[in-house]
Amino acid sequence: MPVRPSILQRKIVAQTRLFKVEEMHLEFANGAKRHYERLVSQGLGAVMVVAVNDQGEVVLIREYAGGMHDYVLALPKGLVEVGEDLLVAANRELMEETGYGARQLEPLTQLSLAPNYMGHKMQVVLARDLYPCKLEGDEPEPLEVELHPLDKISDLLGRDDFHEGRSIAALFIAQERLKQEDWSGKDWQELGGA
Amino acid sequence: MPVRPSILQRKIVAQTRLFKVEEMHLEFANGAKRHYERLVSQGLGAVMVVAVNDQGEVVLIREYAGGMHDYVLALPKGLVEVGEDLLVAANRELMEETGYGARQLEPLTQLSLAPNYMGHKMQVVLARDLYPCKLEGDEPEPLEVELHPLDKISDLLGRDDFHEGRSIAALFIAQERLKQEDWSGKDWQELGGA
Repeated sequence: MPVRPSILQRKIVAQTRLFKVEEMHLEFANGAKRHYERLVSQGLGAVMVVAVNDQGEVVLIREYAGGMHDYVLALPKGLVEVGEDLLVAANRELMEETGYGARQLEPLTQLSLAPNYMGHKMQVVLARDLYPCKLEGDEPEPLEVELHPLDKISDLLGRDDFHEGRSIAALFIAQERLKQEDWSGKDWQELGGA
Repeated sequence: MPVRPSILQRKIVAQTRLFKVEEMHLEFANGAKRHYERLVSQGLGAVMVVAVNDQGEVVLIREYAGGMHDYVLALPKGLVEVGEDLLVAANRELMEETGYGARQLEPLTQLSLAPNYMGHKMQVVLARDLYPCKLEGDEPEPLEVELHPLDKISDLLGRDDFHEGRSIAALFIAQERLKQEDWSGKDWQELGGA
């Protein structure tokens, strides 16, 4: 295992409403010195939801994405609030953004964004046993909700508005998980379980 | 199709060596007004490489990631230089970071990072027909290179140092692409082609 570089000095070089930039002076184990800049994570973290209905369809939203000044298709997601449990936050965001709630929620994975210059990690939650439930959110306009078969991710990849790395990773990981469950279920049934 | 909000005003509110933050005053089609902040993309874009050898193994690197102050396993990647072709940039980064070059390179997909507040898109290149070739890069210390079977992504997902969303998405997309090619090849052989 390599030895992490020593942080010789660190200071905040810019701060805005959303972003805080830190400069670090580093010395690597071999003596090499570098100045790095990184975005410092603020808040309690974020959650992304892969909500799958009984027909095997996943719930996606199309929303305005300021970074690209365009509409983008992605999984519902949002920030965890003070004192809020991860799964509760996932269900709240799902209800606010898609009009569905889930009776079954479980942590699926954690995804980082750009570890070279960001500390952010997104918690991904798998949600099932869905029911209609709309909560009022703080969106400036209603989001478009789309349902897509989870086993047809390649169709989504062909769309111009579907390109967000974490959503794509989360969909593939959910698909693998559900396949595994399916196989385990079948093995069990074949052994005379069901 | 929804109508994009109007940008009433925009200004740079912070700028550092690496980051430029822009504030936008937006008016949505329904009249709702919001202030958004976003990171403005600089440079000519970035490229990520899925390099697969003849044994079906993908080339990964472990490098220090300043955002997390820790070592992270991910696909090789880097910035495209002025006047540089995308595939040439991919091969250069591959040579610098892994010690392999590729005789066959093709664009695989584009992945965005966080479209809500970043405009960045990463070009992903599939590289094959590898050969040993080391180029000197600007890394502060040598990177660890690891080979992993591309059809065992789930093993990687179980590791603590493998969590970067775009790398995971790119590996699954490459796996799908190679499976499709494999099936087409088999169909063709079954039809008496080979």
